[in-house]
Amino acid sequence: MLDNLEKFTNLKRDIAQINLDPLQRGGILTPAARAALMEWGDGYSICDFCAGRLDRIKTPPVEEFVHEVLPEFLGTDEVRITHGAREGKFAAMHALCEKGDWVVMDGNAHYTTVLAAERAGLKIEYVPSSGEPSYAIRAEGYAEAIERAYEHKGNVSMAVLTYPDGNYGNMADARAVADACHDYGVPLLLNGAYAVGRMPVSARDLGADIIVGSGHKSMAASGPVGVLGASEEYARIIFRLSPTKKNKEVELLGCTVRGAPLLTMMASFPAVVERIRSWPEEVEKARWFVAKMERLGMEQQGDRPHNHDLIFFKAENLYAISQIAKKGRYFLYRDLKDHGICGIKPGLTRQFKLSTFGLSRAELETVLGAFEEIIISYAKA
Amino acid sequence: MLDNLEKFTNLKRDIAQINLDPLQRGGILTPAARAALMEWGDGYSICDFCAGRLDRIKTPPVEEFVHEVLPEFLGTDEVRITHGAREGKFAAMHALCEKGDWVVMDGNAHYTTVLAAERAGLKIEYVPSSGEPSYAIRAEGYAEAIERAYEHKGNVSMAVLTYPDGNYGNMADARAVADACHDYGVPLLLNGAYAVGRMPVSARDLGADIIVGSGHKSMAASGPVGVLGASEEYARIIFRLSPTKKNKEVELLGCTVRGAPLLTMMASFPAVVERIRSWPEEVEKARWFVAKMERLGMEQQGDRPHNHDLIFFKAENLYAISQIAKKGRYFLYRDLKDHGICGIKPGLTRQFKLSTFGLSRAELETVLGAFEEIIISYAKA
Repeated sequence: MLDNLEKFTNLKRDIAQINLDPLQRGGILTPAARAALMEWGDGYSICDFCAGRLDRIKTPPVEEFVHEVLPEFLGTDEVRITHGAREGKFAAMHALCEKGDWVVMDGNAHYTTVLAAERAGLKIEYVPSSGEPSYAIRAEGYAEAIERAYEHKGNVSMAVLTYPDGNYGNMADARAVADACHDYGVPLLLNGAYAVGRMPVSARDLGADIIVGSGHKSMAASGPVGVLGASEEYARIIFRLSPTKKNKEVELLGCTVRGAPLLTMMASFPAVVERIRSWPEEVEKARWFVAKMERLGMEQQGDRPHNHDLIFFKAENLYAISQIAKKGRYFLYRDLKDHGICGIKPGLTRQFKLSTFGLSRAELETVLGAFEEIIISYAKA
Repeated sequence: MLDNLEKFTNLKRDIAQINLDPLQRGGILTPAARAALMEWGDGYSICDFCAGRLDRIKTPPVEEFVHEVLPEFLGTDEVRITHGAREGKFAAMHALCEKGDWVVMDGNAHYTTVLAAERAGLKIEYVPSSGEPSYAIRAEGYAEAIERAYEHKGNVSMAVLTYPDGNYGNMADARAVADACHDYGVPLLLNGAYAVGRMPVSARDLGADIIVGSGHKSMAASGPVGVLGASEEYARIIFRLSPTKKNKEVELLGCTVRGAPLLTMMASFPAVVERIRSWPEEVEKARWFVAKMERLGMEQQGDRPHNHDLIFFKAENLYAISQIAKKGRYFLYRDLKDHGICGIKPGLTRQFKLSTFGLSRAELETVLGAFEEIIISYAKA
């Protein structure tokens, strides 16, 4: 078994020119981040001049990035680096909630929010979405969910809003959700995995007490890496120091991202701040793409007009093709790949999501042309 | 604040030719790992063809690596990828122990073992070392520590042995420790952060029920990444599935290292397996280095003869120099740097640790020559 190992080296990605995967569009490295990977790739290179705490390293300037720049960027009091959004959510829940407590979350929540709650031993009360076609999350739903948990004699110690969610790209009214939760004294955690690094987000302006973001999903960083921000009140608990190991934060096990991923996040950061300034154009482009796709017979689900690059489509016309196509439900994946396009999950036709983030109109024209050609080719057949 | 950000790009490491840092010697990337970083650097690139679970990805061949190769390599039933040794220890403790339980660990334990226990809400009973100069950990100490915890009416749900420890590079008799713990029905977790990837280790042969290793510390990988192995009995609990999210492992929050660090571990793996075959020469080289250093007036602490590349020295002669040197206690760091050598913490003189791992005898001759020259130069002054 330990003899034939060369297969694990020289592995190449097999990826098309245009990638529509929402998971990947915001995590494409900048040239500066690629340079950082090469310079800081060796294990523990970030620790060259460490005095014992990752977030206090001065060379490279991690301390300034974590303690000055990121709090300003996220609009929160304290920030730490995590392994990603899910690890940030778990850290916050584990630190702030007691086993057996209840957490309230939107019905569109990412599966990792559920896992974080399960791992922390919490019970979950969902705020259901309005269902097809808008899948909207109402702020009043949070009050109702908290009340339902109370009926179970539950202690509700956290609420989570996915902003936007990872299925429909819906942007709920976070400020109203925060107000609803605060009426019950429940802190709100904003899962900004698809927001932080793509669009302007201020935890403070939205009323979120805690915020998580993902470096590899939306901050042009090589994962796993994320950010966890909290207002002073909760930061004190989440980032509490060990009673026995001087200067070490218990919930972070001392240090989190002890390596290159953090340096890639830092290296990409100026470009990320810059691209956020173009967010209105990103939204406009997404809406333009939606209009064109709908003219081809597909229906966008979720917020209308849409406010994010992550877009969910229902496509009965493509589903009909899958019933007759030679390759069955895999026809769409393969035909798009023939057009140099990837990122829609193999086998999906009737409903799928994609992202237009960072793609030019010309590239999106290619995508639209491919869909059109595919639909026409099967209509002929 | 968000205007002057260019400082976070183009950061360069400032490192000497010969690096003695025990933290870094085993994490230097192979050329194949460097290539993997470039190929797989983009966020979530590993998910190109994922069907929902990191450890089941077939392209690239993560599934074979995690489910076939690594269990064989570690001598255990089940293995998963983690963010590092500390995250593996916490996952095991969090899954297997109840808040308020006791964990028994060696007095030489890494601080992250303590933090993992604190984060999991566990009480700690230490197995004290024999102290200066050998700092040895006796197997009987585990039985005694478990008995002491029982006196507190404690439930002892795990024992940890640091193998070797990160201060003295001591290799305790793990088999005897495992037997002592098993006499009480207590599972043993072996912290192999400085072993796995450097030397042969089989959890099964040593009697360890759980084992953690570190990719960035000892497996020539870009961090953070590690391995967590467990025998069937404990793997079932640690890697339990979510009751609500199909196929997702709760304790791992679904997936852990969703990015390039895992690919670097895989790319380096053939070279790591190969270098482990040279472990006897590594030990011989370490002993030779110790003998030469002692001839220069420094005293090695810990196991004698020494069995690992991580070596702790007491150096009263260097301490004496620090009392008169112009740069005070920083003289050693700066003088070694002038000789192209780094890796001993700035400010340390009286006691310090270093590693000879992967350095050639010629490079170590340079190190010995530098120590000699430094000592002589101050003797003259």
